Amino acid sequence: MSKYILSDRPFRKEFDEKIAEIDSDYRFVLEDELVNDANWQNVEITIGWKKHWKDKLLYEGTPLKWVQSISAGVDYLPLDEFANYNVKLSNSSGVHAQAIADHLLAILFMQNRGLFSAIQNQRHAKWEVNGDDYAFMQDLRVLIVGTGKIGQRLASYLDFFNSKPIGINTNGREIEHFKETYSLSELDKQASKADVVINILPLTEDTYHLYNTEFFKNMKTTATFINVGRGPSVSTTDLYQALQEHEIAFAAIDVFEQEPLPADHPLWQLENILITPHISGFTPHFQKKFMKIFLNNLSSFIKEGKIIENEVSLTSGY
Amino acid sequence: MSKYILSDRPFRKEFDEKIAEIDSDYRFVLEDELVNDANWQNVEITIGWKKHWKDKLLYEGTPLKWVQSISAGVDYLPLDEFANYNVKLSNSSGVHAQAIADHLLAILFMQNRGLFSAIQNQRHAKWEVNGDDYAFMQDLRVLIVGTGKIGQRLASYLDFFNSKPIGINTNGREIEHFKETYSLSELDKQASKADVVINILPLTEDTYHLYNTEFFKNMKTTATFINVGRGPSVSTTDLYQALQEHEIAFAAIDVFEQEPLPADHPLWQLENILITPHISGFTPHFQKKFMKIFLNNLSSFIKEGKIIENEVSLTSGY
Repeated sequence: MSKYILSDRPFRKEFDEKIAEIDSDYRFVLEDELVNDANWQNVEITIGWKKHWKDKLLYEGTPLKWVQSISAGVDYLPLDEFANYNVKLSNSSGVHAQAIADHLLAILFMQNRGLFSAIQNQRHAKWEVNGDDYAFMQDLRVLIVGTGKIGQRLASYLDFFNSKPIGINTNGREIEHFKETYSLSELDKQASKADVVINILPLTEDTYHLYNTEFFKNMKTTATFINVGRGPSVSTTDLYQALQEHEIAFAAIDVFEQEPLPADHPLWQLENILITPHISGFTPHFQKKFMKIFLNNLSSFIKEGKIIENEVSLTSGY
Repeated sequence: MSKYILSDRPFRKEFDEKIAEIDSDYRFVLEDELVNDANWQNVEITIGWKKHWKDKLLYEGTPLKWVQSISAGVDYLPLDEFANYNVKLSNSSGVHAQAIADHLLAILFMQNRGLFSAIQNQRHAKWEVNGDDYAFMQDLRVLIVGTGKIGQRLASYLDFFNSKPIGINTNGREIEHFKETYSLSELDKQASKADVVINILPLTEDTYHLYNTEFFKNMKTTATFINVGRGPSVSTTDLYQALQEHEIAFAAIDVFEQEPLPADHPLWQLENILITPHISGFTPHFQKKFMKIFLNNLSSFIKEGKIIENEVSLTSGY
């Protein structure tokens, strides 16, 4: 009898074959193939997670043993219940690193070359040059809050362009490509000196509304704030106010407390923000990259009951 | 009696002192200081050029010996008359290389990450994702037409991002950081295979309207065309048509046949073009970079009557 790997999205045929090569007892299923409760009893692994799966899969004696998340952040998952019922969890940390680092580099260079203003002017057929709009990467002090795989990749880019990124992580440990690193307790001090502050932290109790009025007031009025981490790390109301009152010069926000950002939200009306619809992690060749982690874990899970790549601590949440 | 270096723009005080250190006989003047014909007789060097200086400075027996242009391209200067009256010419090739390479990288990454579409959607408060908008640099075949200092710098960037740029130059000679290089006669063949075609060529008789209907029809319909070289290398009418009929997917144009592009020009109305107001060369720290070349040339000019950096051939025009 087959054991099921329930996936929240389809994958290409080639990956069915790769799973069969590892262990022909396992096979992919999508939810619409689970026509009765007996089918659900075969689900030992999920790829991704849907809220309503909780009733079907989280109970004493569940056959579910392991959830492989599609994302790097796992704050939206029922971690306590996974812990209660001995469900292991792994994330996709690293899969999106290049995409998100590319997204961040795109924003930094777009701003250094005055392209956002140019695009705004273009809609009014306005040929207008502002000589102050331009900067070289090496002249900017970029503070990267979160020195995981995304932060490291971005830091390697900035290093190449002779910018010397500053990093923030839990304990201030040194990380390759960062000129300096500080602990989270020094965030405010470092943010006050930065030309660009980039949030890539996971969402935890400590990072909820970490970026609020006080934080923005402490930043340079010429600085840019970027969030590609998690929406609730930023108080949307406080950000709106900071941008409207020019406490900071510009923001580029990809993740929001409420998504989609409602069409009548006043943030849409501001001129000094780039709003992107949670696209920074969109990854060309996603399936291949994701499956490299999943198949690696599947082998070790079957052989030794272990997750060898990207296992998440259900207590710390990352 | 002082010899004059007539400049078309002011420079910072510190450079007056540097000139005095080289030779205290020379000094900077701006045009409004030249109050009579006798003053014009002292002009031995110009920095930049204005059209109406021709009557004052280009005649048999002129005191003018050397023009240091502010730009890399010199197509707009009276080259034949410089040759007739033995006026040497040097350009600023290299000064703008980082700025223009940065501008090009900004456009490439902006497109790879779907930011242009996102900015278009933002003005309509539209949260919309198009999964096809994304690419990694290493998956793109970028054709750089012109392998001078700008092209080389961009190629070094692309090399870092594991993209393998193809170069076009007059004779197809090999150039560092380019995976392959071809001569101008192979432009069409190479353009038909490229995902991005970037023009950085100087304007000469050979490059006038090089990019026309035939050229665009030969490109992939999914491809992007970028011009940061000279406006008249592109037929604006043909480009408009190619974009409107989706012969190519996107264009980013910084230089035009007529500048400013008139407000009623139909190009402004298209959705698949980025129009920038000749900003790609805007260079932070411009004065310092430019003066490095000028002062170096000034020393050799005074000592040996020679221009040692960036002298332009008055016959080839580059």
